[in-house]
Amino acid sequence: MKKNAFYAQSGGVTSVINATASSLILEAQKHKSKIGKVYAGENGILGALREELIDTSKESLSAIKSLSSRPGGVFGSCRLKLKDLDKNKKEYERLVEVFKAHNIGYFFYNGGNDSADTAYKVSQISVKLDFPINCIAIPKTVDNDLAITDCCPGFGSAAKYIATSTMEASLDVASMSETSTKVFILEVMGRHAGWMAASSALARSSVNNAPHIILLPEVIFNKQRFLSKIKDVVKKNGYCVIVASEGVKNKKGKFLAESNIKDAFGHSQLGGVAPYLASLVSKELNLKNHWAVSDYLQRSARHIASKTDLLHAKAVGIHAVKFAIKGMNGVMPVIVRGTGKKYTWSIKAAPLSKIANVEKKLPKSYISRDGFDVTSRAMKYLKPLIIGEAYPKFENGVPKIEKLKLIKAKKKLSKWKS
Amino acid sequence: MKKNAFYAQSGGVTSVINATASSLILEAQKHKSKIGKVYAGENGILGALREELIDTSKESLSAIKSLSSRPGGVFGSCRLKLKDLDKNKKEYERLVEVFKAHNIGYFFYNGGNDSADTAYKVSQISVKLDFPINCIAIPKTVDNDLAITDCCPGFGSAAKYIATSTMEASLDVASMSETSTKVFILEVMGRHAGWMAASSALARSSVNNAPHIILLPEVIFNKQRFLSKIKDVVKKNGYCVIVASEGVKNKKGKFLAESNIKDAFGHSQLGGVAPYLASLVSKELNLKNHWAVSDYLQRSARHIASKTDLLHAKAVGIHAVKFAIKGMNGVMPVIVRGTGKKYTWSIKAAPLSKIANVEKKLPKSYISRDGFDVTSRAMKYLKPLIIGEAYPKFENGVPKIEKLKLIKAKKKLSKWKS
Repeated sequence: MKKNAFYAQSGGVTSVINATASSLILEAQKHKSKIGKVYAGENGILGALREELIDTSKESLSAIKSLSSRPGGVFGSCRLKLKDLDKNKKEYERLVEVFKAHNIGYFFYNGGNDSADTAYKVSQISVKLDFPINCIAIPKTVDNDLAITDCCPGFGSAAKYIATSTMEASLDVASMSETSTKVFILEVMGRHAGWMAASSALARSSVNNAPHIILLPEVIFNKQRFLSKIKDVVKKNGYCVIVASEGVKNKKGKFLAESNIKDAFGHSQLGGVAPYLASLVSKELNLKNHWAVSDYLQRSARHIASKTDLLHAKAVGIHAVKFAIKGMNGVMPVIVRGTGKKYTWSIKAAPLSKIANVEKKLPKSYISRDGFDVTSRAMKYLKPLIIGEAYPKFENGVPKIEKLKLIKAKKKLSKWKS
Repeated sequence: MKKNAFYAQSGGVTSVINATASSLILEAQKHKSKIGKVYAGENGILGALREELIDTSKESLSAIKSLSSRPGGVFGSCRLKLKDLDKNKKEYERLVEVFKAHNIGYFFYNGGNDSADTAYKVSQISVKLDFPINCIAIPKTVDNDLAITDCCPGFGSAAKYIATSTMEASLDVASMSETSTKVFILEVMGRHAGWMAASSALARSSVNNAPHIILLPEVIFNKQRFLSKIKDVVKKNGYCVIVASEGVKNKKGKFLAESNIKDAFGHSQLGGVAPYLASLVSKELNLKNHWAVSDYLQRSARHIASKTDLLHAKAVGIHAVKFAIKGMNGVMPVIVRGTGKKYTWSIKAAPLSKIANVEKKLPKSYISRDGFDVTSRAMKYLKPLIIGEAYPKFENGVPKIEKLKLIKAKKKLSKWKS
């Protein structure tokens, strides 16, 4: 029986989440006997609750294809975690109402941990509310912290951005260090898991060994050891490049970024880890320093996307459709790494029950003994994920972004009140 | 008569300064009857004073060519401004001593404002110290603030990085703004001239109009107008993207980055403009915001270099040699824009006396009436400078950096004491 599909983007976006959307829509078009229209939720699952359904069949083929090189989340994303079905049945009943009204039988939810949890809950309405649905969560997160899957689409591109930026900036610092900046600090994302900070180690080349210090959220920050390590590196090397995860914490479990800084009015100031560390270096070591904070730049840098990551992102979109039309429910297409020496990968289905709300941090075996670096095991894991370039088209010197129509399906229901 | 050449990199480096070095060395090799070896100063002019002369003839052709895609300053740079010849004759006498010892008759100095001043002073030793020298300053600065030249090599690539990053991040913010971040602030370089912040306007595409606010060092910051503009933009657009120059000042002429922030010990904290503005937005407008600081990333991002800029950087290197062997002294090869509708450019020689210490800020006609944007005239000027991509080679997922030998000429003199 032919049913329409609902696709939504959830949580923080990545530079390749639209590539997943693109491949999913194109794959769905290949199965016209089973899948009718693909509706995309405007602003994620909010679009389903509000009945704001973007009809992707109204877009041109070229527009859908162009999504594979468009950063951000083209249909809009949101941070909304559904409560348990028992605790907020109303939301689920509304979803069923909207799905019924628009003949939706497939639910694709493209997100991270929290989204896997929401998708898992939605998958249960087929039993608990007796509404047939094939619910597939599709992995996406620069944090790379999803369980079971070998890696998460979005991470490889952020990692490539971080490795490249660290290398480029380190060559800059190296050339100036004799009379100017001695310490450079780059702050990267990662509140709880240090995958992104770890990926900066891929910057090391034959000409310089930067970064010299990596600060991971998995390792408790020790000010004295940190400062003495910098002193050693600067003495030996002339300069020191540090990559710090935004989630670095002190022994009390408090984020460094929240520490100690007050403005002139005595308000406490959320400072960022990089400026905090820079101020330490200035005060305690009196070394000239510079700092950068990548923030959204690292997760939206489609211009320096990893080709491997892009292929992963497309593959999970395609397999989501394949799994759905096979009748699967409550699963996620995950990336499985081959066991050979050469990097290979494939996609399989994994149950959401094992993925929802689990957070995969850097294993201990990936962290160096002194806590300031990653091990060769980590490097072996990380390296293939940033291989290959996949440049977008440029127009007038900047990436070309095609305009979509984003036409919404006519509403059939009354307005939703949360 | 055949003479050796001395080449030095000076001041803050760019992503294409090594391309200038590369083309200069390759061009010099074409004029073997006039130019012998090209010595590169280790750490800029310090290398001349200390007699630390890197013999570029020891490098392979492939290594010299590879410099065209290597960020940073491969021979090392420094920030050392020579005093007037009358005030510190000793330094100039040392230069003459080193030049004599190594048969150097050509002096190439690759830098910005201060460097043009130093080169101008060095050019005078041919008259004042009766030592024949052909001294050519070669333009380089991401600040784009040199006089006479239409633009400065290094700027176009930084501008392309900023425009691309602003566009990418704005698509990210756009997709999350319904339930999350409403205001995004990107801090870019530019202490006195707003060229880099202005270049973010090139991010505007058919799908979104970011950046919505540009803060230039040429415009005095007005808190109330700034906050009310943000409120308007967020109301109309759902989110607001701001690009702020590090050099934004308040009406007392004080950098915002230095304002008001104290740490827990009462020390004043150099905070960066972006976190300062973010804290304003949080406190006064209560809008969720994110901020990024590009710092060295923007001036070393060779992976997203502008092809036009790269061609400029190479051309000034080639013409420096051509002007020198013609016997010119105290000049700079500058970029001249053609007058036609299509962007064209050529190189001519300009006297250093007119360039040294002059700082070219954004003209008034380039700044919008409300002070938060640039005009169409500015856009017309900026647009051609970021056109074209010039990707480096990648290896293992990151830019490939070739190792140079960096063999120094044998010292012939006693150690220099400053």
